[in-house]
Amino acid sequence: MVADSEQIEIPGSTGAAVPVAAGQALRLVNTHGSQVVDTWALSRSDRNEYLSVEHTRRLNETLCPVAGDRLWSNRRQPMLRLEEDSFGGPHDTLVAACDRWTYASLGCPPDHASCQGNFARALAGLGIEFGRAPNPVNLWMNVPVQGDRVTLGSPLSRPGDHVLLRALTDVVMVFSACPMDLLPVNGPDMRPKSVHYSILDAGAP
Amino acid sequence: MVADSEQIEIPGSTGAAVPVAAGQALRLVNTHGSQVVDTWALSRSDRNEYLSVEHTRRLNETLCPVAGDRLWSNRRQPMLRLEEDSFGGPHDTLVAACDRWTYASLGCPPDHASCQGNFARALAGLGIEFGRAPNPVNLWMNVPVQGDRVTLGSPLSRPGDHVLLRALTDVVMVFSACPMDLLPVNGPDMRPKSVHYSILDAGAP
Repeated sequence: MVADSEQIEIPGSTGAAVPVAAGQALRLVNTHGSQVVDTWALSRSDRNEYLSVEHTRRLNETLCPVAGDRLWSNRRQPMLRLEEDSFGGPHDTLVAACDRWTYASLGCPPDHASCQGNFARALAGLGIEFGRAPNPVNLWMNVPVQGDRVTLGSPLSRPGDHVLLRALTDVVMVFSACPMDLLPVNGPDMRPKSVHYSILDAGAP
Repeated sequence: MVADSEQIEIPGSTGAAVPVAAGQALRLVNTHGSQVVDTWALSRSDRNEYLSVEHTRRLNETLCPVAGDRLWSNRRQPMLRLEEDSFGGPHDTLVAACDRWTYASLGCPPDHASCQGNFARALAGLGIEFGRAPNPVNLWMNVPVQGDRVTLGSPLSRPGDHVLLRALTDVVMVFSACPMDLLPVNGPDMRPKSVHYSILDAGAP
């Protein structure tokens, strides 16, 4: 039997930091569809080790992870495996998490939520101060690459789409249900929506 | 008249950190051809601001800068302009700088030079401690992207190819003549080679 913890909500525009032990997996559900979730992982044994998209692109020789792929750290160690992906991608690894300068450039007040702010705040809730956020995996973000062009596309994810992320070492996973409400990154209604996660104990999902 | 400082050598496998004032430009010459140069820029007024390839991809909507493009900071401010590029690219913004874990995985001793090590050492020479290196612009590195595939290609740069990088704010530029001598990143002879730079005062090149 595989224990599946209760579904925990990450409200739209907010973040969560979740310790996940090696062998455990986290199922993340795009409950309402179309929501982008910026995703990070940090090592629990080395405070300078983190999931690095630039290492992952090099070691997997792809722009974007697909089901079965490992996600690699800046120490070139495997941190996570993307075991399931009902969406099938692509996700995005190319563009920066939104930050307060994004929203300043869009005319928002300085207290507008951002994925970078959510990263720091979620980790602070666990007593972790990490410094500047690595570039995340932007789950369900549609950033088409055609030749050299990198554009923002409308989201393609569907209600109930999920990923299963297996921890290959002890990590803290960090998520931000992207707060973007001025561009249609999270759908044409430009309204950030909640997503949900649950933890699965070691073993098959 | 435009003053052009003397040509300064960056020996193969080593790095250099060069203060460049707003309006000045740096001409970097791939003297012998085929050499990759990992390139960073840090703000001199804000120790947390740096040239960010993930912001540059987003703001320019391209994978790779071309002549005329600005390169952007993590504060979404323009830091550099790629004013001239005799090579015409592509350069690379996708894969991590080599680091000691790269060389450990290739069986090298722990004192093998790396681009990340060169970044830290060159900055230390100016009394700057920056922490983990941002993902660089890998000048003249041939990383073809075909669909979702990201591979390492043979270098295409020619002896004497140059770029002209104009500082749009006061920066420290950091360069590493990539020490890779176990893969043909820097050419089939797998021998890192020197490059040269000079500083041009404000104005046209």
